[in-house]
Amino acid sequence: MRPTPRAETFPVNTPAASQVFTTVLSQGPLPRLEVARRVGLSPAAVTKAVRPLIEAGYLVEGVDEEARPALGRPANLVRVDGGRALFIGVKVTGDEIIGVLTDLCCRIRVARHLPLPGRDPRTVLAGIAELTRKLLAETNGSTAPVLGLGIAVSGDVDRAEGTVRYSPFLEWRDVPLAELAAMTTGLPVTVDNDVRALTVAEQWFGAGVGLSDFAVVTVGAGIGCGLVVHGRVDAGAHGVAGEIGHVTVDPAGPLCHCGNRGCVEAIAGEAAILRQIREATGELPDAEAALALAREGVAAARDVYARAGEAIGRGIATVANLLGPERVIISGEGLAAYDLFAEQIRDAFVAAAFGSAAQCDVRTHPLPFDEWARGAAATAIQSFIGPDTSR
Amino acid sequence: MRPTPRAETFPVNTPAASQVFTTVLSQGPLPRLEVARRVGLSPAAVTKAVRPLIEAGYLVEGVDEEARPALGRPANLVRVDGGRALFIGVKVTGDEIIGVLTDLCCRIRVARHLPLPGRDPRTVLAGIAELTRKLLAETNGSTAPVLGLGIAVSGDVDRAEGTVRYSPFLEWRDVPLAELAAMTTGLPVTVDNDVRALTVAEQWFGAGVGLSDFAVVTVGAGIGCGLVVHGRVDAGAHGVAGEIGHVTVDPAGPLCHCGNRGCVEAIAGEAAILRQIREATGELPDAEAALALAREGVAAARDVYARAGEAIGRGIATVANLLGPERVIISGEGLAAYDLFAEQIRDAFVAAAFGSAAQCDVRTHPLPFDEWARGAAATAIQSFIGPDTSR
Ligand SMILES: [Zn+2]
Ligand SMILES: [Zn+2]
Repeated sequence: MRPTPRAETFPVNTPAASQVFTTVLSQGPLPRLEVARRVGLSPAAVTKAVRPLIEAGYLVEGVDEEARPALGRPANLVRVDGGRALFIGVKVTGDEIIGVLTDLCCRIRVARHLPLPGRDPRTVLAGIAELTRKLLAETNGSTAPVLGLGIAVSGDVDRAEGTVRYSPFLEWRDVPLAELAAMTTGLPVTVDNDVRALTVAEQWFGAGVGLSDFAVVTVGAGIGCGLVVHGRVDAGAHGVAGEIGHVTVDPAGPLCHCGNRGCVEAIAGEAAILRQIREATGELPDAEAALALAREGVAAARDVYARAGEAIGRGIATVANLLGPERVIISGEGLAAYDLFAEQIRDAFVAAAFGSAAQCDVRTHPLPFDEWARGAAATAIQSFIGPDTSR
Repeated sequence: MRPTPRAETFPVNTPAASQVFTTVLSQGPLPRLEVARRVGLSPAAVTKAVRPLIEAGYLVEGVDEEARPALGRPANLVRVDGGRALFIGVKVTGDEIIGVLTDLCCRIRVARHLPLPGRDPRTVLAGIAELTRKLLAETNGSTAPVLGLGIAVSGDVDRAEGTVRYSPFLEWRDVPLAELAAMTTGLPVTVDNDVRALTVAEQWFGAGVGLSDFAVVTVGAGIGCGLVVHGRVDAGAHGVAGEIGHVTVDPAGPLCHCGNRGCVEAIAGEAAILRQIREATGELPDAEAALALAREGVAAARDVYARAGEAIGRGIATVANLLGPERVIISGEGLAAYDLFAEQIRDAFVAAAFGSAAQCDVRTHPLPFDEWARGAAATAIQSFIGPDTSR
């Protein structure tokens, strides 16, 4: 179905070689012996896997000058040459497209925003094509090829098919976005749900490296959750998974857009917070003004954030009680209010976590908006390396 | 640590062979070609994997007489010889031990109950030893060896270590049950959480065969949940997972033993149902009398079951929203009341399921109490075949 105008093929064709590469990518630089230990292969098998990757320039081996010991022989370390290949990641929001150009190690080189005059597929595709052209122009002077484009969209996305099955936000149904974007950009395209894309970035390049079970909870306009279970991002059998935003906190609580009452998102989503502050104070704040009201000490505004924190904490406890992740990483634009609800998140989590689920490491990871686009780039890197690796 | 007095070793030592065997075990009898298709191996690889298993008598190949076509050549089918090996499964409850003797296909041959005079590890171990002796005596006349003992206990169980870390029910902490039971019985022992053991039985021999993502929800004294994600039973990083019983349904609801209010278990667990009926009717029913009251049409009693069904339905929706399983199998002693709350489970599930999560196939599987012991036998079979298969 989906065209794959792949400029270059990655010289990895065994699960072992793929595992070696992703381990060095996520956890390197590492001595070969340590790579062997971490992936559970013999040093000879690692050497065999590494050879074509060094020949093709994806891996380099050498002394780490910064870590050179004062005495004794320095260790030879294997690392990924991030500059060997470039990727583009794009996040589609309601009113703009955010794009980043990253290297193979998912480090952002350039980030660009493009306003979006409409949300229909044609307009969005034209925007993606324009932003991609601009980012490709930024590679002038670099010999590294751009080997993939990742697109992150909120909603029900079938990554394998490259289709946006349903995005309420964009009002799209069954848009074959990967195919269309591949035609307009000439790049191999990966399309994924935005929260899952962010989860891939945490799994490969962030606070999830080395963990087989963790969750990413995003707090912002919506409350989302990406889950890694047994080392793989969970996508759900029917395209729905990680809907922490619709965990019920209070069946008598405010009405949610999903039709239920008292969902986490109906209490702690951005729109819900603004509405509750408006109801409580009579003022009509935007997100920044709402934060200012609470920080000035307006009790009614502070209460709204406190209740939001409690709802988020309960949602996280539900995830922990059902799945027992090693770590939960809280992220998203909503973290701007973290000082106003951190304590309530923590307290509600501890109260509602069952037994040893309370041992789960709950931490925050501030998320500049570009990170959503970086997540999309991470999915493109993942697709390039091989579709069956660690997911 | 744990002694493994294994009477006989299973002649499988590659992941491919293990996959071939478990596929035939779960889904057979099958023609070789179909086995090859389902496991994604070449017919030659299947033939290679099958040979030692046929030589050792675990697999047999031949014409299925019952399925012989009227015309044409009948297909040769590969199937497991269930009678080749026997296993014992034991479930420890508060006042008795239930044991079953099964064949390699987890079909129950004999089931026995033994009253338990106490819950301390010494008493329980003596009971397990006695019940095992009695079940071993039933194998007289059979030449098939008993190759493993599985023990299922509620609570936090570390299967890899063979330790019951914490069972509130038995008031045990850090009991090395597998090691102790191996010494008293002379059998290789697998210890697992009871709900997870039941989930293994569904995954290998029940309504979960062929599914990579499903959940088993048990309704009874407690409300439990076993999860299979990406083909493996989830045990949680800290020993807690599947705690659907402590999903909050109503923060203003009845107090739960976990310290929170309005958990599913505090509304729909057996003790909670009896307490609520007592409060509403002034009568002091046991489980059977409570059912009778509701079936006679006593409105207050019917309401209690209806609310229980709603709580269970909401809990299942939470699992579906977070994990997106293909199927949820509701099971457990509590299904005796199914006519009184089936509709409420369904309605609450549909109302609270988010988007396409409502497509999840929710079904029931009546569970005679012996099934818990059969689950334990399934874990023993799984351990015998190879610890890393499908979990
Ligand atoms: Zn909702
Ligand atoms: Zn509880």
